Amino acid sequence: MKDSDKFKIVNELAKRRGFFWPSFEIYGGVSGFVTYGSLGTMLKRRIEDKFREFYIRPLGILEIESSVILPAKVFEASGHVEHFKEPMVECGKCKHKFRADHLLQEFAGMSDTKTEKLSPQQLIDQIRKHEIKCLECGGEFGEVKQFMTMFSTTIGPYSDAVGYGRPEAAQSIFVEFKRLYENARERLPLGIVQIGHALRNEISPRQGVIRLREFTIADIEFFFDPEEPQCPLLQNVENEKLRLLLTEAKLKGKKEPVEITVKQALGKGFIKTEWQGFFMAQAKRFLMELGVPEDKQRFIEKLDWERAHYSKQGFDQEIYIERWGWVEVSGHNYRTDYDLNQHMKFSGVDMRVFKEGRRFIPHVVEPSFGLDRLVYVAVEYALKTIKKRKVLSFPRDIAPVQVGVYPLVGKNGLPEKAKRVHQFLVKEGFLAEYDESGSIGRRYARADEAGTPLGVTIDYQTLEDDTVTMRDRDTWKQVRNKVERLPELLHAYFRYKLNFEDLGELVKG
Amino acid sequence: MKDSDKFKIVNELAKRRGFFWPSFEIYGGVSGFVTYGSLGTMLKRRIEDKFREFYIRPLGILEIESSVILPAKVFEASGHVEHFKEPMVECGKCKHKFRADHLLQEFAGMSDTKTEKLSPQQLIDQIRKHEIKCLECGGEFGEVKQFMTMFSTTIGPYSDAVGYGRPEAAQSIFVEFKRLYENARERLPLGIVQIGHALRNEISPRQGVIRLREFTIADIEFFFDPEEPQCPLLQNVENEKLRLLLTEAKLKGKKEPVEITVKQALGKGFIKTEWQGFFMAQAKRFLMELGVPEDKQRFIEKLDWERAHYSKQGFDQEIYIERWGWVEVSGHNYRTDYDLNQHMKFSGVDMRVFKEGRRFIPHVVEPSFGLDRLVYVAVEYALKTIKKRKVLSFPRDIAPVQVGVYPLVGKNGLPEKAKRVHQFLVKEGFLAEYDESGSIGRRYARADEAGTPLGVTIDYQTLEDDTVTMRDRDTWKQVRNKVERLPELLHAYFRYKLNFEDLGELVKG
Repeated sequence: MKDSDKFKIVNELAKRRGFFWPSFEIYGGVSGFVTYGSLGTMLKRRIEDKFREFYIRPLGILEIESSVILPAKVFEASGHVEHFKEPMVECGKCKHKFRADHLLQEFAGMSDTKTEKLSPQQLIDQIRKHEIKCLECGGEFGEVKQFMTMFSTTIGPYSDAVGYGRPEAAQSIFVEFKRLYENARERLPLGIVQIGHALRNEISPRQGVIRLREFTIADIEFFFDPEEPQCPLLQNVENEKLRLLLTEAKLKGKKEPVEITVKQALGKGFIKTEWQGFFMAQAKRFLMELGVPEDKQRFIEKLDWERAHYSKQGFDQEIYIERWGWVEVSGHNYRTDYDLNQHMKFSGVDMRVFKEGRRFIPHVVEPSFGLDRLVYVAVEYALKTIKKRKVLSFPRDIAPVQVGVYPLVGKNGLPEKAKRVHQFLVKEGFLAEYDESGSIGRRYARADEAGTPLGVTIDYQTLEDDTVTMRDRDTWKQVRNKVERLPELLHAYFRYKLNFEDLGELVKG
Repeated sequence: MKDSDKFKIVNELAKRRGFFWPSFEIYGGVSGFVTYGSLGTMLKRRIEDKFREFYIRPLGILEIESSVILPAKVFEASGHVEHFKEPMVECGKCKHKFRADHLLQEFAGMSDTKTEKLSPQQLIDQIRKHEIKCLECGGEFGEVKQFMTMFSTTIGPYSDAVGYGRPEAAQSIFVEFKRLYENARERLPLGIVQIGHALRNEISPRQGVIRLREFTIADIEFFFDPEEPQCPLLQNVENEKLRLLLTEAKLKGKKEPVEITVKQALGKGFIKTEWQGFFMAQAKRFLMELGVPEDKQRFIEKLDWERAHYSKQGFDQEIYIERWGWVEVSGHNYRTDYDLNQHMKFSGVDMRVFKEGRRFIPHVVEPSFGLDRLVYVAVEYALKTIKKRKVLSFPRDIAPVQVGVYPLVGKNGLPEKAKRVHQFLVKEGFLAEYDESGSIGRRYARADEAGTPLGVTIDYQTLEDDTVTMRDRDTWKQVRNKVERLPELLHAYFRYKLNFEDLGELVKG
């Protein structure tokens, strides 16, 4: 781990400024849990809101909210109780436990494609062959066991009422599908999303915010009639280029994706359903809007043995980050009628829909995003060094604070005036922060590091003509305009209808 | 339960229209869990946003987000492992379990003030004296046991790594206080809020959305220097009248609150700290903005034996709802330095702050809101019957859908034009919904029942002069104006800067 390691720099900054940090430090920490401070919480929420505005709302996708704990029955039906397991080894000496496949990936250079295919016996054989020993004490590992990675609990006072922490937000949507379908007046296609906390009881997570035991997921379950699989919005994205690494290429050991349009990928059958192609193209665009260029994105098709049990075809959208290489930020699975079918079997309730004389179970494509990773990626890609200072150049529509408000100096009525301007902006609905401590240069530096796009400064001229300067985070240029015009101008600026230069008269520096 | 029972009417409407309903119906239901459908999710989020805008942001309170599962150590320190228990009885015959105190409240007419004071032995004596039998089979109850009402689980693969579902969002704030205080550049007073899911493993919840095992809580921990307890914002609320039912009056058996200003309540020592008085006044105003008139609100002071173990003084804000009477929607506790002190002891980490030569542990007042109950209350108070139809008259700034967009008829180019108007409003950031199915009257009725304040209708005149009608949900009046003026007008309308009549020229009906 070198000093210039970006993961380290991001985490140091994130902790110091209150974006995020590992939870429970005063108790020695428990890996896999993160706390978002004020800036991080705002950034995360703005990314969620952007997701709603960009990805969900234009499609009329409905949002639901349900519980994190669900009764066991749901996950027996969904197949999670049977399948949601990871291979684990225990040190014979100190009894520490590790994920068998992760050990091989980290210390034997194996790909996850390779380790996913290995049986428990093969995993331990490989671990012994590569002489991988306990990371804690150097002891030998025993056999590989399958560890169920759902958190388990009991609902109410009866010990047989088992509940699990949801490993995905999807199942509530399937379980409640009948009512949701009725509420939506029985239309297909019908998209339903849930954004919320999810839980995976990882064996020994060691990548900070990249691998969490509790995280935020955004699962869209998009239901359609399998006999009418056409996506009417395809024309909006059909020429979007995707970088795809397909199973065929993976099996040949290729590591470079092909670049191909959505239309071509569908035409050649690389992507099996139009809706999936549509959502993948949108996912690429969404990540670009979060600040990730297209050459740092790719989609990896999952091999038969890599796919989740419910998936007929699956792609992972991966983003390149400096420390960990290609990391999944969203999964795109064609779940077919698997889940509704299972719940129909287990509950005895008819989950079919009725349409023009036919009864059928809708099919589902699922785009599923990991919000914590999006937050991390947004910070890593925003991080710039300008004149030796750290600046977080967030896209202006996700920046946690929109406007800093500063009196040039802390006297002569400037703080009072600045506070009024600050309150004025807050009342107009802007995320504005007031800061009067330290020199103005220091305050600008602090705001740049927090990623605040605009700084509004109240100076002596303000007291004369009620104008303020506005400073651009990335160019440090300044313009001047009337206070009363700020709401209208800033509203347009943050919706990308105006550029910085349009906000006022340039101040010569 | 009569037909006009409002709880029943609200729940029927909530289920049918997709506000909320009991989860897992296809598996026979598990009490204490709720699913919010599309309208409910939007309503809940708008109430949360309103809470941020009204209650949090003007005070510069910082928001954090942390995990729902926390390691046992945190709740050992906080006292929850020892104290977070409820009295339970089991039927000797069918083994069903019930909350002992709730049985006495429901079937012996006892107040919770009375049952809270009873020992386990006294509880079962009273149950036998009142001949309360098992609600399932009529069997006799055995002795009262204390049931710990935190959900318990195991973190990672080691069985001794116990974790609990958080029963409040407060503890993450205390555990992370040192870092949050540093992030905020060591200022006091310092308010920190967390809004998120919380878990209480209720023994046998039977009041729908009013008593949940998983719910959303908004905990504000407001830290201040106990030697400087003054609230500089007090003047904004000091003449606000509160309806207080104080311990002294409760002990005398009084049930009617006294009406008294915040200033008087502080002056007479009824409320012990200025900040608590301030937050209670704001809580009253907040509930008024959600649609609850002042005479349907009151604050009940908790007696010594009713208060949580961490509280030096506590008030519950209660709202009157038709089925259940007075129901708590927020709690206001003076937690002093209890929690930070406990974490200091258990972690060995110094939690004191340093200020002008002194080292001390800040004191805390805590306003804590139950979001699900706010949602319920908002719906019950919005429910009106206008000309025999159900209308949800939500305040316009929390309505789940702001604008319905309708073509007058489904032909002659009106739907196409209406869809363009709809997309235009969506792009301008409004929560707009398009509806073309059924007669226009039926669509208005549907929107009224969903609580949509405005209906925009595209008619033949629209095709000529690009004007539309706007219809008011509550008065059914209509005005007409240009499409291009909608964003500016509606923006002002939803921020209460314009009345409906200001939106255009009145259409004679």
